[in-house]
Amino acid sequence: MDTYDIRFPTSEYLDGSDAMNPDPDYSAAYLVLRTDEPEGLAGHGFAFTIGRGNDIQTTAIDVLRPYVVGRSVAEVCADPGLVYRALVGDSQLRWLGPEKGVMHMAIGAVVNAVWDLAAKCAGKPLWRLLCEAEPEWLVAQADFRYVTDAITPEEALALLRHGREGAAERTEALMRHGYPAYSTTAGWLGYPDEKMIRLAKEAVAGGFELIKLKVGADLADDVRRCGLAREAVGPDVHLAIDANQRWDVPEAIAWLRELARFSPLWIEEATSPDDVLGHAAVRAAVAPMKVATGEHMQNRVIAKQLLQAGAVDVLQIDAARVGGVNENLTILLLAAKFGVPVCPHAGGVGLCELVQHLAMFDYVALSGTTENRYIEHVDHLHEHFRHPVTVHNGRYAAPSGPGFSAEMLPDSIARYVYPSGEHWA
Amino acid sequence: MDTYDIRFPTSEYLDGSDAMNPDPDYSAAYLVLRTDEPEGLAGHGFAFTIGRGNDIQTTAIDVLRPYVVGRSVAEVCADPGLVYRALVGDSQLRWLGPEKGVMHMAIGAVVNAVWDLAAKCAGKPLWRLLCEAEPEWLVAQADFRYVTDAITPEEALALLRHGREGAAERTEALMRHGYPAYSTTAGWLGYPDEKMIRLAKEAVAGGFELIKLKVGADLADDVRRCGLAREAVGPDVHLAIDANQRWDVPEAIAWLRELARFSPLWIEEATSPDDVLGHAAVRAAVAPMKVATGEHMQNRVIAKQLLQAGAVDVLQIDAARVGGVNENLTILLLAAKFGVPVCPHAGGVGLCELVQHLAMFDYVALSGTTENRYIEHVDHLHEHFRHPVTVHNGRYAAPSGPGFSAEMLPDSIARYVYPSGEHWA
Repeated sequence: MDTYDIRFPTSEYLDGSDAMNPDPDYSAAYLVLRTDEPEGLAGHGFAFTIGRGNDIQTTAIDVLRPYVVGRSVAEVCADPGLVYRALVGDSQLRWLGPEKGVMHMAIGAVVNAVWDLAAKCAGKPLWRLLCEAEPEWLVAQADFRYVTDAITPEEALALLRHGREGAAERTEALMRHGYPAYSTTAGWLGYPDEKMIRLAKEAVAGGFELIKLKVGADLADDVRRCGLAREAVGPDVHLAIDANQRWDVPEAIAWLRELARFSPLWIEEATSPDDVLGHAAVRAAVAPMKVATGEHMQNRVIAKQLLQAGAVDVLQIDAARVGGVNENLTILLLAAKFGVPVCPHAGGVGLCELVQHLAMFDYVALSGTTENRYIEHVDHLHEHFRHPVTVHNGRYAAPSGPGFSAEMLPDSIARYVYPSGEHWA
Repeated sequence: MDTYDIRFPTSEYLDGSDAMNPDPDYSAAYLVLRTDEPEGLAGHGFAFTIGRGNDIQTTAIDVLRPYVVGRSVAEVCADPGLVYRALVGDSQLRWLGPEKGVMHMAIGAVVNAVWDLAAKCAGKPLWRLLCEAEPEWLVAQADFRYVTDAITPEEALALLRHGREGAAERTEALMRHGYPAYSTTAGWLGYPDEKMIRLAKEAVAGGFELIKLKVGADLADDVRRCGLAREAVGPDVHLAIDANQRWDVPEAIAWLRELARFSPLWIEEATSPDDVLGHAAVRAAVAPMKVATGEHMQNRVIAKQLLQAGAVDVLQIDAARVGGVNENLTILLLAAKFGVPVCPHAGGVGLCELVQHLAMFDYVALSGTTENRYIEHVDHLHEHFRHPVTVHNGRYAAPSGPGFSAEMLPDSIARYVYPSGEHWA
């Protein structure tokens, strides 16, 4: 296992700037699981951070080395849950969370690298591996600890069996039409109005039916920018807004009443990502505006409660924050049980590349629909990946290369590794 | 700022063993803030872990060096919140939580070291510094972000002003009688029955009115051990039980119905510490048995929800998991507002030393009572501290030395620093 602290200087252009994160340097705490299989077969994975602290995140991944190095490739590819369970079940590591924050993100990075390896071994893109897997096997991969009051393994099995009906037709539809995307490229808070308007118009011309704006720093600015954006995209394109955790609950409700006139489809991260009851209160107050959250959702226990409390209309999974594919399987199953659409968070570094696989699995073999569902798309940093996402006409094309699309190009790693890479040195 | 990865070999004797943590090595990711003041004035702080991963925790503290080194001692002692706000408000570090797990515990360790320094500068034990502080200053130290739907700064100020009435009398009572303790020394799951019975009897003879047993690994064992413990302590001493997150919600309810006959005062950590709604469901099902949780409560947002949802009868703060004294002030204020007693979690390494100060402040200057309140006491590892806790007749004596009682003896640091210290080398 090799680890790399990789940082991109996105703060120079205010890409990714929002009300909470004024100057992020999009970064990856990155790992490669090397094997002695032919042709350099390797599993790649990473946690996404926004700069400072990426060293801690990389150290946390490093510490997990003894849990994976020396294992049989065939064994972990047949059951990636082996690694997930060993890591999440380690009592001493649990103390550092449990199942949240730096340690859990490190576990997720390693687990996702194992899934990348497993999909490569199978010669399939991950979404297809998941779609073609037996329901019983998927249930065994998911983690039901702490969620059986909301979904049992038996209920999950029934959902997955039901999901297989018509899966072949949906696979074909996916291959032909792709999966709906929405665009955040225009919406960063640090962009001047003209740049925002230009990018919003480009997004609409490019086929996006939904674009998202960052809000929450200043109400007058938000009113102006939402007005300009609505004018730019016209009445028929959806506008979502994202406060990136900026508000307290009463403040969120007051602020959103001012922005309601622009008919946002959803408000994202209105308050703390830990605040299930707070999100439920906001949702009750701002309906019919939808409430979305989840990119900072620490684990399946929070996902469960968001659904139980009726706190969300839209659940936004992130591929690299929870305990990897295994825990995201649980979260997708929970969302399917509660009938809440999943619209994945993406952007950052490689998050689009990863999460498309999970959304496509959800469509083909679980929820069976793309209605009210979109994968976030931000047009940054894809050039660093061996299999970058392809978005045409506002839709993600289904990846065809084997693996989890997690592999970064060696040149990019060499150039942006921190602090020794060419860019930083 | 110097940091140390310090580990004690507690797993050799199964001290600290419970249903979730079979073999902990109690550890501290420890720091010293050195100053150029006379007489080597320094602030000490730490995060507590149970072994593996203490290196990550120590690295995370190390990364915070630039946020404290070079600051004026007078300035941070006058306003420790300066450091708290700089750390919690850093957008890039927030991404690693936000406000949870390794990064937040690191912040808590540094913030607590600043409070240790501030109390030493004032020549007072921390509890007294807090009790004698102006209510306005305390409100400014607390963090109201994300909790104003439950308590406003104005309400907090009113509670603190009310808390000052009679504070002089309560200080005197505290100095004379101390603060009630409960003992977990007997209850570790790895202890044989005879050792548990002997230690339980010793605890009762030593004046404890409440002892706690670990449960949750095996129901038949729990029934036997609870029966033996109840017999050992008699009907008039309270028995609490602690499942250390072992159960799902339905399992917790079924298991607790079997243990109800031993009349436990409370069930602690029945399920995931993140599961506010789960704890509320357990509480509704097992009343009049009380529900307690909080030692793994990641931050004030979870505390707020536990109180809003009526999920707990007893809130168990930990001094070294959240963002230090500043965030614990918020949590104590929330508990006071909701009228829920705080019974601090302690044990580990130095947690008794720290948390006694917060409970004593709560008694003297906030809640005004020790009724239904106890500080946990475990009789381990106190010998490594310069100002170890003193427990006589089942009560904590009020600390008199200046500071937060966080300072470890140099010989202990040298011997147990990992992996180079004499014990480990």
